[in-house]
Amino acid sequence: MVDGARMTLGLEDLADFVRGAAFMGAGGGGDPYIGHLLLQQQMRKSGRLRIVSPAELDEDDFVVPAGCMGAPTVMTEKIPSIGALKTALRTLEELQGRRATAIIPLEIGGINATVPLVLAARRGLPVVNGDGMGRAFPEIQMVTFGVYGCPISPVVVTNEADDIVIVQSRDNKQGEDLARSVVTQMGGMAQISLYPMSGGDVRRTCVPDTLTLALDIGRAIGGASASGQDPFTALFETLDRCEPARDYRVLFDGKVVDVLRETRGGFNVGVVSLHGLNGGCGQFEVHFQNENIVAYRDGRIVAVVPDIISILDRDTAEPITTEQVRYGQRVKVLGVTVPERMTTAAALEVFGPGAFSIDTSYQPLSQLAV
Amino acid sequence: MVDGARMTLGLEDLADFVRGAAFMGAGGGGDPYIGHLLLQQQMRKSGRLRIVSPAELDEDDFVVPAGCMGAPTVMTEKIPSIGALKTALRTLEELQGRRATAIIPLEIGGINATVPLVLAARRGLPVVNGDGMGRAFPEIQMVTFGVYGCPISPVVVTNEADDIVIVQSRDNKQGEDLARSVVTQMGGMAQISLYPMSGGDVRRTCVPDTLTLALDIGRAIGGASASGQDPFTALFETLDRCEPARDYRVLFDGKVVDVLRETRGGFNVGVVSLHGLNGGCGQFEVHFQNENIVAYRDGRIVAVVPDIISILDRDTAEPITTEQVRYGQRVKVLGVTVPERMTTAAALEVFGPGAFSIDTSYQPLSQLAV
Repeated sequence: MVDGARMTLGLEDLADFVRGAAFMGAGGGGDPYIGHLLLQQQMRKSGRLRIVSPAELDEDDFVVPAGCMGAPTVMTEKIPSIGALKTALRTLEELQGRRATAIIPLEIGGINATVPLVLAARRGLPVVNGDGMGRAFPEIQMVTFGVYGCPISPVVVTNEADDIVIVQSRDNKQGEDLARSVVTQMGGMAQISLYPMSGGDVRRTCVPDTLTLALDIGRAIGGASASGQDPFTALFETLDRCEPARDYRVLFDGKVVDVLRETRGGFNVGVVSLHGLNGGCGQFEVHFQNENIVAYRDGRIVAVVPDIISILDRDTAEPITTEQVRYGQRVKVLGVTVPERMTTAAALEVFGPGAFSIDTSYQPLSQLAV
Repeated sequence: MVDGARMTLGLEDLADFVRGAAFMGAGGGGDPYIGHLLLQQQMRKSGRLRIVSPAELDEDDFVVPAGCMGAPTVMTEKIPSIGALKTALRTLEELQGRRATAIIPLEIGGINATVPLVLAARRGLPVVNGDGMGRAFPEIQMVTFGVYGCPISPVVVTNEADDIVIVQSRDNKQGEDLARSVVTQMGGMAQISLYPMSGGDVRRTCVPDTLTLALDIGRAIGGASASGQDPFTALFETLDRCEPARDYRVLFDGKVVDVLRETRGGFNVGVVSLHGLNGGCGQFEVHFQNENIVAYRDGRIVAVVPDIISILDRDTAEPITTEQVRYGQRVKVLGVTVPERMTTAAALEVFGPGAFSIDTSYQPLSQLAV
């Protein structure tokens, strides 16, 4: 990705980037395949995409997050409309009376790691190397931008029929609730633009370096598989190089014996049950709301939001999303801790266990017994 | 109401006006009592309210409908916020870059016949003697404004928490659907402003003279009860004087033996079952979706939207709304036809029987056997 002093993302990076984003997405964020195709098609036309680090942003930059909102199950059938995403951005620009100078992903998970890049390429704008979740989360107020004081409003919601809905609320969670009801009415998936920010806002609030981390992770997994190396070894070596350091742990090794899944209130919610491959390993469950949010072993929590819980193919280490996980898959469940900016009291208030009605206080997975 | 050459509405008119609006509302539009109190309180401060006829409007007048949207059952517990209604109007004015010169009710039923008048009084604006439904209807695209070409958008939805949602759609029904999902999320009741119109638009599309008709009807019923005259006789005399002429008919005389009622998708839906007082009169049912929409006698339709079906107390002729109707009430069910502007093919497309999934073509009640 590094291209002299400037970072760019090219076509040759896409497969790895998308794979890494699926890993970071903790099972959520929508099918990465569709995002991959959209970005590939766009970059064939517009060439390499410029990536800027948060540190490079000026105070008077105008940085806008944009992406998709909805249930990942719906996104596998309803393709994001890049035209509608452009309309969302343009509407937000008109409301703010400024033109965007950079795009930042809301989340570095699944389709929302790629769709903002398609928009940026279409508009000729750079993308910030960072995001607002450091993973994927199911709700749009669950971002560090909001945790550290940036208002969600105006939230612009658009669809392929040129409907435009603008939500203004002083309360970020209420902004989510109102936008969600609109997205549900629009068929379970829509395009959004929100959290208009200055360059300084982004530096102060984002989770930095997540685009390059996704690329590194995806490259490790993909490169190892291609060269016959153990992909988990390659993945762990990449995670060992993270700065600041991250803990990680294989939480379970086994097979999927049951998946409960339903679309409820615009979300994709359910439970993945696993058994050890040779029996005798007890009960293991991963609960998800779009993303994997908590893992239980014999009823005890072994990892919980905001830590990343990813279900990976046990041979190839390819990430498996919550809408793709199914009976019989042989998997390893991996837990990875997140940067400190995501685990402050203010952050945990917004996307810690309590925000998902899980009755526990957050502990990093390294402090939980497996 | 007529005050020299100018029409005004005073405190002494309110009880009659509200009663008449409840009659015109076909059982819907929300509890008239709350609207009565709001308007009374406002007019004690601001004095008489000026009423302008559609014919008096100039082409460059800027006329804005405003009111409440939601389930009438909710409105009995959640009082409309006039502050939020002012915000809705102001937001629409900002979007259009113009200041309103008059307010017009969306519907002449229940709370939406009074709340726009409170707003007009608060803002010192006149109210147009007309409305968009000539009765009450459950959905905001069911107005003559839209039938005859005025776009619903932008629809501004506001609540008491200062949330503001702006809905832009080229399709009026989609505007309804999107706004409805927002209103439901806001707790089942919110304030709206929509259908920005010129004076010419209003003249061309509105149902005229409905404010004065409501007042006349309410005065007839109330005055008769007070003086010992039969209120139904007084009511019929008033309906006989309507220009253009209206047909009307007592569809049933009996008592309520069952009410099925539920709040579904933001609407108040159900069925009122009636029996004759002395038995032997067969089965009579009124189906409602916020408003009474169809009446059946022994399974045969005897009146259907857009004709007005009102359930009245059989002694006092006081109108009974769909959320107040209950077991044991002695009632007469009255049907009244509507002006021609409401029964063209274009109008019936939007608020005829088919719009309520009733499998019949519209026939005025005078052409249906009782």
